[in-house]
Amino acid sequence: MDFPSIKQKAIEELGEVLGEVDQESVGKFIGMITGANKVFVTGVGRAMLMLQAFARRLNHLKIKAYVVGETSTPPIEKGDLLIAASGSGETVTTVSISKLARENGAKVALITAREESTLGKLADIYIKIPCPTKLKLEGEYKSVQLMATLFEQSLLIFFDCVALMIKRQTGISDEEMRRLHANLE
Amino acid sequence: MDFPSIKQKAIEELGEVLGEVDQESVGKFIGMITGANKVFVTGVGRAMLMLQAFARRLNHLKIKAYVVGETSTPPIEKGDLLIAASGSGETVTTVSISKLARENGAKVALITAREESTLGKLADIYIKIPCPTKLKLEGEYKSVQLMATLFEQSLLIFFDCVALMIKRQTGISDEEMRRLHANLE
Amino acid sequence: MDFPSIKQKAIEELGEVLGEVDQESVGKFIGMITGANKVFVTGVGRAMLMLQAFARRLNHLKIKAYVVGETSTPPIEKGDLLIAASGSGETVTTVSISKLARENGAKVALITAREESTLGKLADIYIKIPCPTKLKLEGEYKSVQLMATLFEQSLLIFFDCVALMIKRQTGISDEEMRRLHANLE
Amino acid sequence: MDFPSIKQKAIEELGEVLGEVDQESVGKFIGMITGANKVFVTGVGRAMLMLQAFARRLNHLKIKAYVVGETSTPPIEKGDLLIAASGSGETVTTVSISKLARENGAKVALITAREESTLGKLADIYIKIPCPTKLKLEGEYKSVQLMATLFEQSLLIFFDCVALMIKRQTGISDEEMRRLHANLE
Repeated sequence: MDFPSIKQKAIEELGEVLGEVDQESVGKFIGMITGANKVFVTGVGRAMLMLQAFARRLNHLKIKAYVVGETSTPPIEKGDLLIAASGSGETVTTVSISKLARENGAKVALITAREESTLGKLADIYIKIPCPTKLKLEGEYKSVQLMATLFEQSLLIFFDCVALMIKRQTGISDEEMRRLHANLE
Repeated sequence: MDFPSIKQKAIEELGEVLGEVDQESVGKFIGMITGANKVFVTGVGRAMLMLQAFARRLNHLKIKAYVVGETSTPPIEKGDLLIAASGSGETVTTVSISKLARENGAKVALITAREESTLGKLADIYIKIPCPTKLKLEGEYKSVQLMATLFEQSLLIFFDCVALMIKRQTGISDEEMRRLHANLE
Repeated sequence: MDFPSIKQKAIEELGEVLGEVDQESVGKFIGMITGANKVFVTGVGRAMLMLQAFARRLNHLKIKAYVVGETSTPPIEKGDLLIAASGSGETVTTVSISKLARENGAKVALITAREESTLGKLADIYIKIPCPTKLKLEGEYKSVQLMATLFEQSLLIFFDCVALMIKRQTGISDEEMRRLHANLE
Repeated sequence: MDFPSIKQKAIEELGEVLGEVDQESVGKFIGMITGANKVFVTGVGRAMLMLQAFARRLNHLKIKAYVVGETSTPPIEKGDLLIAASGSGETVTTVSISKLARENGAKVALITAREESTLGKLADIYIKIPCPTKLKLEGEYKSVQLMATLFEQSLLIFFDCVALMIKRQTGISDEEMRRLHANLE
C-alpha cells in the first residue's frame, strides 16, 4: 500500500470514530475546562503525549494546565480538573493518579474507548471515542492502523477541536496566544 | 461552530496538506530509517511530542529510536539518522542539534513546512508538508486551526502512515509489536 | 546562617546518614545491577531526578539502564532489575510500578528511609538511609535541611559511590565512558 | 575501595570545592532569585537534573520556577531570571537558550567550573565551583569521582543550601511548603 492510500484510510477512520463522539458531552467537557481553577493531564505512552500537546495549547489559551509529574506542577485541589486518557480505561498508574485526584477533591474527565471500565466508573464525565484498544473487544471498530494508533490520533484531533471551540468562546486573540507561547527554544 | 463541523474541517485540511507530500521522498525517508543503525528525533514544543510518538512506535517495530535529551539516549555516530521537525525550519535549538548530528557523521532528515530555511539547507533530505507556520508567509495554506496545529497533526498522521508502511515492509507481527510495548504503566 | 556554615552542616548530615548504610547490602545491590540484563528506575519528584542521574551514569558504564515512562524504555522481564526510591516507602505510583515489575518476573531493589513499609515488604532487597521522611516518624534523624532534601542528596551520593565501585569492578576505561556519553547537547 | 571510604572521599571533595564558592556572589544570586518575576532553569544531562531539583524546591518556596522545554513553561521576559549550569561553560544548546533569554530581556545567572567561557562572558553573574570538567584543564581540582560527578553533586548541595537560605529570608513555614508539594504521585 502506498502513502496516499494509507493516508486516505487513516483520515477516513478518524472521521468515522470522531463522528461517534457525543456532542453534548463535548459541551460539558469544555465547561469543566473553562470552569476549573487549574487543569491537569495524566496518561501513559503515546496517549500521554497527546495530553501534553493539549496542555500546551490550553496554556496558550490562558488556561492553567499542567502535566502530572512535571517540575512545576502544583498540587491538585478542589475546583481543579484532571483530564485522563486511556483507551482501555484500565491503565494502572492512570487509575492511581485519578483516585488521588478524587481524594483531593478534584473532578476527573476521561477520554476513553471503553466506558465500562475502572476509569469509566471513577470519572465524573467521559468522552467515548470508539477505537480499538489493546483489549481486543468483540464488535470493536476495525482499524487498519497499528496498535492503538487510531485512538491516539483521535485524541489529538479531538483536543485540537476543543481548543478551537474554547478560543471562540473566550475570544482570546491570535496575538495574545502568540505572546503566551514559549520563547526559549 | 460545533464539534462535528470543526472536526470535519480539521480532517479536510489534513487530507489536503498530506496530499501534497512527495511520494518519492516518503520512500527515501523510509529507506533512511530502516537503513540506519539508530534513529534520533529532535524538535521543540508540540512538534517534539509528535516526534516522540513516532520514536515510541519505531521501537515497537524493532527500530532503535531515541529522543534527544532523554536519559538512555546514546551518542549519535556515523550510520545513524536524526529526524528533525520544524514548521519554519528556523528553530534555534533544533538547528544546533542538527549541526551537531552532522558534525558527528550522522544524516539528518527534516519534516518541515518550509524547505527554504536554515534546516532545509542543512538536511540530507526533507519532507515538505505545506502548512502555515509562525512566520506567516505569503501564499501559505489557510487553516482555520490554531497556530501550528495543522502542522503538528500532519506530523502525527504522516509518521503513523510511515510506521504502517515500515511494518508491511519488514513483516514484523502484531504479536511481536505487543511484546515490545512498555509494561510498566 | 551563612553559606559556609549551612554547606558544612549539609555535608556533616550526609556523612552521618550515609555512614549508617549497610555495607553488605551495598555489595548485594551492586551484584544485582551488574547481574541484571536491563536496569529500570522509578520514583517521583526529586528522588526520581536522582534515579535518572544514576541511570545516565549506568549507561556510561555500559549497563543498559532505563527510566520508567521515557520513550525508549523497553518492557521489563525476568532477569531485569527495577530500582525504586521512596523515603517513606509508601509512594502510590511507585508501589504500582514495583508490583507490575514483580508480576513481570523482575527483581526490585529499594532505596528508602523506612523499610517497614509497603515497598519495603515488596522489594527483594532494600538499602536503608535513615533520613527524615514526610511521615515525621518518632526518633528519626534530625536534619536542618528542607523537607526530604537529605534523603535526595543521600540518593545522589550513594548512587555515585556505587557507580564508582562498579567502574572499578568492571574495569571500563575513562575513554570508553566518554565515548558512551550523549553528544547531542 | 569499599563504600565507607569512597563515600568519605566524595564528601571531602564536596566540602573542598564548595568551600571555594564566593560568599558575596551567593548573596547576589539569592537576591536575583527572590527579585525575579519568574525563574527558569536550563542545562543538559545530569546537571539539568540538578537544576530541575532546584526548580522543584523553589516552587515549594513560592517562587515561580520553570524548566526550559517543559509543557507549562511560559515565555521568558524582562524581569525574569534564567539559571544555567554548565561545567565547561561551552554546552551548545545551553549557550543558545541563554542567548535567547538575553534577547528577551531576561537576566542570566550561571553556575560553572569555568568562568572564562562563552557562557561566563554572556552571564550577568556567575558562581564558580572549581570542579574538573570534560575539558580536562591544567591545574584543575583532582577528583577521584567519575567524569563530572563532583560538579553535579556540588550543584545539588549548592542549590539546596541556597533554598534553605531563601526559606530563612522569606520566612515561609514548613506547613506552607508541604501544601505546595505535588500530591498526584
